[in-house]
Amino acid sequence: MTAGGLVDIAAAEKRIRRHILVTPLIGWQEGGTWLKCENEQLTGSFKLRGALNKILGCTEAELKTGVVAASAGNHGIGVSLACQIAGCHAAVVVPRQVVQRKRRALERLGAEVILANGDYAVAEREGRALAAERGALFVSPYNDPEVVAGQGTLGLELARQLAALKGEGRTEVYVPVSGGGLLAGVGMGLRLGGAQVRLIGVQTESAPYFHRFFHGGDPSTVVEVPTMADGLAGAVEEGSITWELVRQMADDIVLVSEAEIAAAIVELHRSTNMLVEPSAAVAAAACKRGVGRRRIAVLSGGNAGADLLERIGTASQGDSGRS
Amino acid sequence: MTAGGLVDIAAAEKRIRRHILVTPLIGWQEGGTWLKCENEQLTGSFKLRGALNKILGCTEAELKTGVVAASAGNHGIGVSLACQIAGCHAAVVVPRQVVQRKRRALERLGAEVILANGDYAVAEREGRALAAERGALFVSPYNDPEVVAGQGTLGLELARQLAALKGEGRTEVYVPVSGGGLLAGVGMGLRLGGAQVRLIGVQTESAPYFHRFFHGGDPSTVVEVPTMADGLAGAVEEGSITWELVRQMADDIVLVSEAEIAAAIVELHRSTNMLVEPSAAVAAAACKRGVGRRRIAVLSGGNAGADLLERIGTASQGDSGRS
Repeated sequence: MTAGGLVDIAAAEKRIRRHILVTPLIGWQEGGTWLKCENEQLTGSFKLRGALNKILGCTEAELKTGVVAASAGNHGIGVSLACQIAGCHAAVVVPRQVVQRKRRALERLGAEVILANGDYAVAEREGRALAAERGALFVSPYNDPEVVAGQGTLGLELARQLAALKGEGRTEVYVPVSGGGLLAGVGMGLRLGGAQVRLIGVQTESAPYFHRFFHGGDPSTVVEVPTMADGLAGAVEEGSITWELVRQMADDIVLVSEAEIAAAIVELHRSTNMLVEPSAAVAAAACKRGVGRRRIAVLSGGNAGADLLERIGTASQGDSGRS
Repeated sequence: MTAGGLVDIAAAEKRIRRHILVTPLIGWQEGGTWLKCENEQLTGSFKLRGALNKILGCTEAELKTGVVAASAGNHGIGVSLACQIAGCHAAVVVPRQVVQRKRRALERLGAEVILANGDYAVAEREGRALAAERGALFVSPYNDPEVVAGQGTLGLELARQLAALKGEGRTEVYVPVSGGGLLAGVGMGLRLGGAQVRLIGVQTESAPYFHRFFHGGDPSTVVEVPTMADGLAGAVEEGSITWELVRQMADDIVLVSEAEIAAAIVELHRSTNMLVEPSAAVAAAACKRGVGRRRIAVLSGGNAGADLLERIGTASQGDSGRS
């Protein structure tokens, strides 16, 4: 463990690098748009980085009692693979509306999957209670310096890839924001790697907790509505270390609509054959409105249900029917 | 290392299970067709299993001098990730026509990538020479009991999944065949797991080495023509352990045409949103002609170039223009 809650990204990279992939940064469309394809990371999302850094840094005694996580899916998948590598038990509490593909992946990784009696917030509450009951370690998906440091390895890696690109001009990096761990980590990693960029967090209009906070409002007044971006739903823990880290790291936080998310998914699929999950597509959607000479969307995950395109099609038809 | 060239699948599973995923077996279309989605394995192909079993079974001394592999891509990617985990150097000799997506994946895994002066056969010859020169271990993609045992873990896993399916009737398992390591391993793994199935190897008409051998012909008389299934191209080493293992394990070996491969890729993509590589699609193509009550296609890999569908479209148009 790092001392005093330090977010030590260099140490994280050393600890986890054997178990992760360096993911591609590929050109997208014309005019300086790039995709950081973390959807091609092992397990299909960036969450593996943070989970590995947390679990591989645990003591034998901590591992012996097992680990509990609450997750819409990807964090749980990362924790489960990290636990498989470390040889310890993983229990994952998932929201009732978990994407089936993610649930099955958890089961295949040997995790004990527990269905919460509600949404992500309920899953987190039940997960913490379960961990307390078992004397097990609860691994937060974002409110943990080790987890943030793990996500930060993505920023450090991206800084090296940016350094290899030719040409000058303002660079904007668009990062999906849910609990804020990815944005905080990527921001610190980019700085550690010497990259000078404008860092823009992206949320869906349906769950704008960090957006409200960043722009001076009170996140507790957010009234959340359903979103197809399952990984971005749910309130952020009061007192989370990420509130302040995101405020320091982000240059802006912007919102995208559900329609923009759907359009970005379809466009990414048509142009790259990659089917990314809605929580990742938010970055591509915001990126399209960018003004920087070079705009990078962090595609944070690819664990979309196989029926995603079909559901988007149906939803659009439904919308036009009602209008 | 296992003694005397024994293909020890149980030991392989114990050795590698922390580092691989149990991949999904999903229903496909109506009437008992199933897909074993090894394209969703970490690194996107089954090759990781064999490579991990080989590399994690090496002595410190063997690892110290590094490892050399020859590969159309996936075997090299598996070896590179296994070497990353084991902390040793990997050099991979690839055919001149390597799929760019695979080449970049090798580079991102930190492998030393060497472009051969020709096709896979040339890459293998140059790889062996390089290994001899360096005193390094050459890891064959199929002619190695440890590699075959690693691939066999897929068969053992599939046997457990089949046991969980309800209903009676003949089960056919379709497996792509190149060097024969996957078919040999899967056949032995299925038997070890107690599954009674008809095992059918699938090759492309363009490179029918095992097909000719299995049906009593002389594989050295095969005149290979170009195929979109890059992973299935290239002659099989004389004296390979897989010749005899495949003869023992396979109930039949069948051929599919390039047009059937293309059709299977398009159909899989349309119905499941998965883009599999041509070398994997052969199993789905042959599976469609099957007569068993239950037919399983082993989708061996998903590392297709993003332009695959486009290339297929162009090729079909070209074909109809000539007809």
